[in-house]
Amino acid sequence: MQILLTLAYDGTNYGGWQRQKNAVTVQQRLEEALESIFGDPIRAAGASRTDAGVHALGQRASFFIEENRIPMGKLPIVINSYLPSDIAVSCAQQVPDAFNPRFDAKEKTYEYRIWYAKFPNPLQRITSLFHPYELDVGEMKKAASAFVGEHDFSAFCSAGTLVKSRVRKVFECRVDEAAPILTFTVRGDGFLYNMVRIIAGTLLYVGQGKIKAEDAPYIIESRNRALAGKTAPPQGLTLLEIKY
Amino acid sequence: MQILLTLAYDGTNYGGWQRQKNAVTVQQRLEEALESIFGDPIRAAGASRTDAGVHALGQRASFFIEENRIPMGKLPIVINSYLPSDIAVSCAQQVPDAFNPRFDAKEKTYEYRIWYAKFPNPLQRITSLFHPYELDVGEMKKAASAFVGEHDFSAFCSAGTLVKSRVRKVFECRVDEAAPILTFTVRGDGFLYNMVRIIAGTLLYVGQGKIKAEDAPYIIESRNRALAGKTAPPQGLTLLEIKY
Repeated sequence: MQILLTLAYDGTNYGGWQRQKNAVTVQQRLEEALESIFGDPIRAAGASRTDAGVHALGQRASFFIEENRIPMGKLPIVINSYLPSDIAVSCAQQVPDAFNPRFDAKEKTYEYRIWYAKFPNPLQRITSLFHPYELDVGEMKKAASAFVGEHDFSAFCSAGTLVKSRVRKVFECRVDEAAPILTFTVRGDGFLYNMVRIIAGTLLYVGQGKIKAEDAPYIIESRNRALAGKTAPPQGLTLLEIKY
Repeated sequence: MQILLTLAYDGTNYGGWQRQKNAVTVQQRLEEALESIFGDPIRAAGASRTDAGVHALGQRASFFIEENRIPMGKLPIVINSYLPSDIAVSCAQQVPDAFNPRFDAKEKTYEYRIWYAKFPNPLQRITSLFHPYELDVGEMKKAASAFVGEHDFSAFCSAGTLVKSRVRKVFECRVDEAAPILTFTVRGDGFLYNMVRIIAGTLLYVGQGKIKAEDAPYIIESRNRALAGKTAPPQGLTLLEIKY
């Protein structure tokens, strides 16, 4: 049987979701917990390969086991008792064997947070980017709307990204200010590698006047990574939700 | 001259505000930073001796120096460049030599946060207490109002607290729910050792039905520490503001 988990994590101390040789990752910690519970080595397939330092509130990951004797409603609590405090499962549900947490995802929502104030807030440093310089939030809001729709997002993915198609559909791209916090929300049918962080970096460039809001559509059209902004640092990014 | 600082910190990795032998403290880190800048050993006098693990957004601390050649507006940035990322100064101002940051405080505001949900949120774990069990928030709100006014708070301070008077005036004591976060706000002319955490623990007992809301006034009157709730864990507590 296949079990789908919803999980949250503080990505600060991890080398991202996916297992690697030289860093502890969330996938590794989750697989270790599952192995402790079920005995056998278990592979957990994640829906999104979040980068090092990126957080999640609604990541999904599934795994197969022969038999589960733990009531599904109690499974999150049992798994959490084997996980460190910076990772937590909030839901477990059985899904058909043919279900694929990555390819069956219909919609993903990410949030990028900026602590937009003159002085840093140590209590916000883990979940936001500190930006003490002036931003034109109105221009950023205008630029954000350009990302909505179906586009080839080649200008917004890291060079060397190997994918069949770089066309993605963005349903929503929004800038909200609740001073001193600025939030970018991006919702789409999927995202290329680093795409949300490059969109965030581009919106920051617009706020700083380095890119004009009205040029955003042309940067998308250009498919030229060099025209977009810098990849924004990971700590501001949180994977909020995945819908199937 | 005396300089008064406003500072924020994530208390997670500190043994509280005050210098001690066996733990790194916020006072120590601040004094080390000031010494690096001004050359001489400097003692920073804090307004509140926050406990180990307690956070601050508006702590105040002052220090004396012979001469300050750094423009006052730039001083926070200079000090922050010598501080770790979990401590940050947001304001520096000159005050008269007779000013005492602790005894001249007229009003302090503390906030206690609870992540009141079935499953933990790793992104909230540093600044809130995780409480997955049912609470009667209505009763907690009723009980909170009992703390307002001038009372002898002996029932709400740790045994062995050496102070002349245990009478304090609470201006406001409020429970707010913005699901899934529950916030207790307490504002008063001063607080005894552990007082806010014992009030928080008592409100939690009321929410759990272990103490009746209508008994709160009698527990205050009793001056008996044994009748109040447990001291709530430190990570939920933040010193928000001090007024002079």
